[in-house]
Amino acid sequence: IVSKLPNVGTTIFTTMSQLAAQTGALNLSQGFPDFDGPQALREAVGRHVMAGHNQYAPMTGLPALREQVAAKISRSYGRSVDMDSEVTITPGATEAIFCAVQALVRPGDEVIVFDPCYDSYEPSVELAGGRCVHVPLALPDFAIDWQRLQDAISPRTRLIILNSPHNPSGARISSAELAQLAALIREREIYLISDEVYEHLVFDGVQHASVLAHEELYQRAFVVSSFGKTYHVTGWKTGYVVAPPALSAELRKVHQFVTFCGITPLQWALADYMSAHPEHVAELPAFYQTKRDLFCDLLKGSRFQFKRTPGTYFQLADYSAIRDDLNDVEMSLWLTREHGVATIPVSVFYQSPPKDLRLVRFCFAKREDTLRQAADKLCRV
Amino acid sequence: IVSKLPNVGTTIFTTMSQLAAQTGALNLSQGFPDFDGPQALREAVGRHVMAGHNQYAPMTGLPALREQVAAKISRSYGRSVDMDSEVTITPGATEAIFCAVQALVRPGDEVIVFDPCYDSYEPSVELAGGRCVHVPLALPDFAIDWQRLQDAISPRTRLIILNSPHNPSGARISSAELAQLAALIREREIYLISDEVYEHLVFDGVQHASVLAHEELYQRAFVVSSFGKTYHVTGWKTGYVVAPPALSAELRKVHQFVTFCGITPLQWALADYMSAHPEHVAELPAFYQTKRDLFCDLLKGSRFQFKRTPGTYFQLADYSAIRDDLNDVEMSLWLTREHGVATIPVSVFYQSPPKDLRLVRFCFAKREDTLRQAADKLCRV
Ligand SMILES: CSCCC(=O)C(=O)O
Ligand SMILES: CSCCC(=O)C(=O)O
Repeated sequence: IVSKLPNVGTTIFTTMSQLAAQTGALNLSQGFPDFDGPQALREAVGRHVMAGHNQYAPMTGLPALREQVAAKISRSYGRSVDMDSEVTITPGATEAIFCAVQALVRPGDEVIVFDPCYDSYEPSVELAGGRCVHVPLALPDFAIDWQRLQDAISPRTRLIILNSPHNPSGARISSAELAQLAALIREREIYLISDEVYEHLVFDGVQHASVLAHEELYQRAFVVSSFGKTYHVTGWKTGYVVAPPALSAELRKVHQFVTFCGITPLQWALADYMSAHPEHVAELPAFYQTKRDLFCDLLKGSRFQFKRTPGTYFQLADYSAIRDDLNDVEMSLWLTREHGVATIPVSVFYQSPPKDLRLVRFCFAKREDTLRQAADKLCRV
Repeated sequence: IVSKLPNVGTTIFTTMSQLAAQTGALNLSQGFPDFDGPQALREAVGRHVMAGHNQYAPMTGLPALREQVAAKISRSYGRSVDMDSEVTITPGATEAIFCAVQALVRPGDEVIVFDPCYDSYEPSVELAGGRCVHVPLALPDFAIDWQRLQDAISPRTRLIILNSPHNPSGARISSAELAQLAALIREREIYLISDEVYEHLVFDGVQHASVLAHEELYQRAFVVSSFGKTYHVTGWKTGYVVAPPALSAELRKVHQFVTFCGITPLQWALADYMSAHPEHVAELPAFYQTKRDLFCDLLKGSRFQFKRTPGTYFQLADYSAIRDDLNDVEMSLWLTREHGVATIPVSVFYQSPPKDLRLVRFCFAKREDTLRQAADKLCRV
């Protein structure tokens, strides 16, 4: 069999989590919490499974959960979306992104992604017969380089994939930047996927600038989010996508043949919990900012250099003062094997990584004791 | 937005289930049980959710569940598969089929499907840039028409999608037919997807002829099954695919970017239950045969004509003695609206349905009282 994805190996997340397990290292690589979701949310699952909510959900998602999503969007971004024609529940945000790409991209189309970028974007585009055009974000702050973006746009550009808060850097797009983007693509038939799975993990009192809050961009956008990230249950594989009715209709055509629907008892549990605990989302920034600050304060005792991340549960750190001789993949392996802390190298998120990149990514969605132990080890590096 | 799937509407399953809900009809249309999975299985979910099994599962599936799948395959078909390189757990059988198609089919490739066929096959092939060649099964028994199959094979044929036990007809492929198929494709580079989601729903003491039991075919096959069908939990969206290592590797490349992984607590619960209750699978044929026979015995009092289905939880019935003036879509709507029983028309599973097709599909995965009530209504038609 000749591979259709010859350049694809096992994802870095799988590789590093496996290495962490093998070596007994603290796993600050793959992004997931080592603590649990709210007890009331988890109890609700058992209740719904016992109450007989175990058969197919509607293809578009459980109405009660779509209603909660619409209510949350109204509270968070002031947009009123129609839960029936604009909200679709999916088995994970990755599936939502995949389906949006398949709904839009045809052979020969170009898709602009900003490097470093999440590793599922490019294979999704390739499977649709499209081609990714990689626009590097400007270092050191991973901001959009407008000149490069403008140069990358061609008559074949069909789609731009945004990601804010940004994995792996934590960078955020501002509303001014959204306005600039709108102006840039106004006269063209270019669509957007806005990957906002970390929408509620933004720090230092800043508001997340969602595409949902930008009328003009929303009209051509698929906005993707994740219950896994927001409710600390990444293994529940439940996410959603919000898009104007015509775009949602095309996404659903694909979704109904890729997975058909999401997971029934988990959708019920999330709907219950969201309706009883609307404060969860509002409290999330402080919850994660405390973890970020604890980790960063402890890391001050190390030779890593960093600026506190503005969003996500990832903290980048420059290690050039420690081992400038190692590239970031070597550094991640060395930290895991020799110092017992697994990390993710940043270069793997690039098509052509900057040669002197000396950055690793730590996931701080961890219990206080894990963060203390990890920082302890990292201070000894 | 110009649709990439212009011929796709909402699936017939969604349409008929919605109509059933609106009209209050008994829903014998979409295939799902109206009873629940085993209590011990459901209890296990609550246990694992409370025990903290809520973060990403491994991309290939929980080892404990892959081990149970391998053990079941060994017991059922005498094949020993390697759980690490040959078994992949997916969020539903639909996703497994979709990923297998994407892994194999390139623009211009032809894929042979047997009509009537499940509605996800063709859009999956189209999204990969391939083209379905439809080979009608021979009526009245929905058997493979070998001459037509042979005529359909061309140098561009890349894949054949088999489905046994067959939805919607219940027909089964025999081991003799598998041998004939092997001989037919021996000299060609043609792969197989064997959709065996109803593998444990075979009646009248006959053994299911799995591609897993046919060495030569297995070497070029993706064999897909579903925990939802076997354990009465269709809303858990958990299935699996078994394929030789080289094929599994290509499928996983796609799967890791389509959904990344399956649902953690449900995989744990299934693993527990399968290990404690290996008899479940062996008891399933009798469990469903009782339902089939009850429904068919009651239906003898009606003017529907039918042969008892050899497999699946679907019973076809000819209604030409009742309303020969209606096509099967009209008949399904009429039965739902006027007689309170929702069914699925068979013509929608065809590219070009036979003109005189007068068949509807009833799902008998229902409680005894539901089947009695439905038969009651159907006897009055
Ligand atoms: C789906 S595994 C990767 C989790 C994640 O989003 C990350 O670590 O970046
Ligand atoms: C995924 S909804 C359809 C269920 C089913 O397999 C059927 O009714 O044929």
